[in-house]
Amino acid sequence: MAGESTSKTRPNGRDRLLAAAAQLFNRLGYASTSVREIVEAAGVTKPVLYHYFGSKEGIYREIVGHTLKHFEDSLRAFRERAGSARERIRHLCNEAFSLFLEHKDEVRLMYSVYYGPPQGAPPFDFDAFYRSYVTAIREVVEEGMRVGEFRRGNAEAAAWALVGGVSVALESHLCETAGNIDRRGLNEILNVILSGIEKTRTKRD
Amino acid sequence: MAGESTSKTRPNGRDRLLAAAAQLFNRLGYASTSVREIVEAAGVTKPVLYHYFGSKEGIYREIVGHTLKHFEDSLRAFRERAGSARERIRHLCNEAFSLFLEHKDEVRLMYSVYYGPPQGAPPFDFDAFYRSYVTAIREVVEEGMRVGEFRRGNAEAAAWALVGGVSVALESHLCETAGNIDRRGLNEILNVILSGIEKTRTKRD
Repeated sequence: MAGESTSKTRPNGRDRLLAAAAQLFNRLGYASTSVREIVEAAGVTKPVLYHYFGSKEGIYREIVGHTLKHFEDSLRAFRERAGSARERIRHLCNEAFSLFLEHKDEVRLMYSVYYGPPQGAPPFDFDAFYRSYVTAIREVVEEGMRVGEFRRGNAEAAAWALVGGVSVALESHLCETAGNIDRRGLNEILNVILSGIEKTRTKRD
Repeated sequence: MAGESTSKTRPNGRDRLLAAAAQLFNRLGYASTSVREIVEAAGVTKPVLYHYFGSKEGIYREIVGHTLKHFEDSLRAFRERAGSARERIRHLCNEAFSLFLEHKDEVRLMYSVYYGPPQGAPPFDFDAFYRSYVTAIREVVEEGMRVGEFRRGNAEAAAWALVGGVSVALESHLCETAGNIDRRGLNEILNVILSGIEKTRTKRD
């Protein structure tokens, strides 16, 4: 929820608007959601929405922008982080997973707009973010290969495998299946993949 | 394209209707697409659509059902296949990738309905298919562990890692990024993951 991420107390009108809009856009679609429905769900009046966001488009931009900014901050911190390649990769993947779970409605909305009909929603450059995410992981894999922590090989393929592992874990929470992958499950998936590239394989079982 | 999968010559009215509907549902959304738009795009008259599919709902059910059936047939063939666990896994993942590329419009539509607002589209049990896909891979991983081809460990995590590898390759074709993952890329991703579970690691470089 957007509200939870900025305030520990009862979310204020701005945060309630963000959370209500994300839920309504998911349930009804961006095009079919009205400003009236958003303000009613948030328990505020229209001028409050116009004050903070200017328009329905503005609130949508804020939801997506706010979520992407969180992910981008986490990538930046990752780039500056010390530690072994293995540790850094595990840290980033766990961080991405946590951020995602905190912003589930927002991420589902991004998936929906990305894969679905545009519905007149303003475009956002999810591809640019995704590329920098894969690149950041690939660079750490390459560094691990250079310093001999990982076996030499196809760093790009290893990065994709890691991204895929995080994605299945995330997507298991967007699907309404019985089998959600939890943090422990994510780390066991990462173990399999890291075992594939490490010089000395992690002992298992 | 639905048309290409059933006929090598110019697709007939039925197949043109399926292809046109899948494209329009993607571009405009299920709810916003009219029967008139579908028949015009397919170059047929309304009675032709009603004859084959009964309604817009009927054509949607056929698109999704037809695509899932292809994937289910491929899973069934996989279950009966002989060979090493490694070979069978690689075969299934490559088969899923090919089927997907042949049904790109249909898969994108399924993603869009799955993650997006329901839009009044009839539900389909994508989760059941997804579960049987993950289970089939897990069973072969378990068999590989039993016969000593793979190291003993968490077969579920290995199955998820493999599913994740296939998903990132598929999704790279749904995204409009520069970097699509081709068949060779997919197999290098699978190599990384299989190296993580194999007793004797595949040589890389």
